[in-house]
Amino acid sequence: MQYPLPIARLIESYMKLPGIGEKTATRLAFYTLDMPQEDVSDFSKSLMQVKSDLHACSICGNITESDPCEICRNPERDQSTIMVVEQPKDVMAFEEMGEYNGLYHVLGGVLSPMDGVGPEEINIKSLITRLQKNDDVKEIILALNSTPEGESTAMYISKLIKPAGIKVSRLAAGLAVGSDIEYANAITLKRAVQGRTTL
Amino acid sequence: MQYPLPIARLIESYMKLPGIGEKTATRLAFYTLDMPQEDVSDFSKSLMQVKSDLHACSICGNITESDPCEICRNPERDQSTIMVVEQPKDVMAFEEMGEYNGLYHVLGGVLSPMDGVGPEEINIKSLITRLQKNDDVKEIILALNSTPEGESTAMYISKLIKPAGIKVSRLAAGLAVGSDIEYANAITLKRAVQGRTTL
Repeated sequence: MQYPLPIARLIESYMKLPGIGEKTATRLAFYTLDMPQEDVSDFSKSLMQVKSDLHACSICGNITESDPCEICRNPERDQSTIMVVEQPKDVMAFEEMGEYNGLYHVLGGVLSPMDGVGPEEINIKSLITRLQKNDDVKEIILALNSTPEGESTAMYISKLIKPAGIKVSRLAAGLAVGSDIEYANAITLKRAVQGRTTL
Repeated sequence: MQYPLPIARLIESYMKLPGIGEKTATRLAFYTLDMPQEDVSDFSKSLMQVKSDLHACSICGNITESDPCEICRNPERDQSTIMVVEQPKDVMAFEEMGEYNGLYHVLGGVLSPMDGVGPEEINIKSLITRLQKNDDVKEIILALNSTPEGESTAMYISKLIKPAGIKVSRLAAGLAVGSDIEYANAITLKRAVQGRTTL
């Protein structure tokens, strides 16, 4: 005997999430069965909306409901500095820190030849185009994770941009090697921004 | 700055699941954003269907798509034995074991005066009605978790049923005290069924 089809399907869906195996998925599915109808409807709707209502900002690549995004649209942000990050989550981490008032550029990943991720697969071209169109930019802060891929992506971008005479900096040591920006606390991030070094 | 509304809503929904805090919910929400459209649609649909397509069997109280459920409808199951369990998941555990061919009765919980769960809140009345309507039943196996609540629920049901001259048994020791039937392996369950003792 198998689980009734609707619950088997839900278990399968939960198992597609990272770090959730069959036992946990089963527990979550049965828990869902006992949740209030309204919570489950909201959950179901929010899943659909996250895919339908969120898009990449045509300027910086961050996720947004409106294009261009809130940060790119905001004239009070410092237009002379662009911080290059890997993921939308990294933008949120810096925004929560509250000390940075410039713009962002979200790569959507890092160079990783082993995984078939070359310069065409991440938003590097759009960054170059952005710099060519806009003379105001004085500094690029490379805020990539301190992984081997993050480091080599930083070097690659640095070499592309430096000939144009724009200052390129990267975050100071302060981030533990191998750790994720996403999980760093605000003070660690603040120190990393303050102590950024010129490449 | 906050997360865009669709992602904030999805994070909130994930946080309603057991054992998922804000950091994990955020990670799951961003992961969902990168999942194939089809997988997210399936996930969304299966959430709705699990609430709309599954009901309690009017005879045994187990979850089912059709009423009565597959087990209650099956004439090849031994109609003389009813195993009383707490949750639909427990039925699945015994069905996976494959050694039991009788019927089930799903209480949907255990007596717990501290949490306001009395005899009216779980399917005890329907079990008594079932026994009154059906003279074929010769034995009731109480397969409740070996928690204080499970034990006292077993005693309560046993006292109700014994005057009717029906044999009442409970699972043998073999289940570790404090553990859940749901997570026991098939051999442990098999031993517990074989060694059941008369109350």
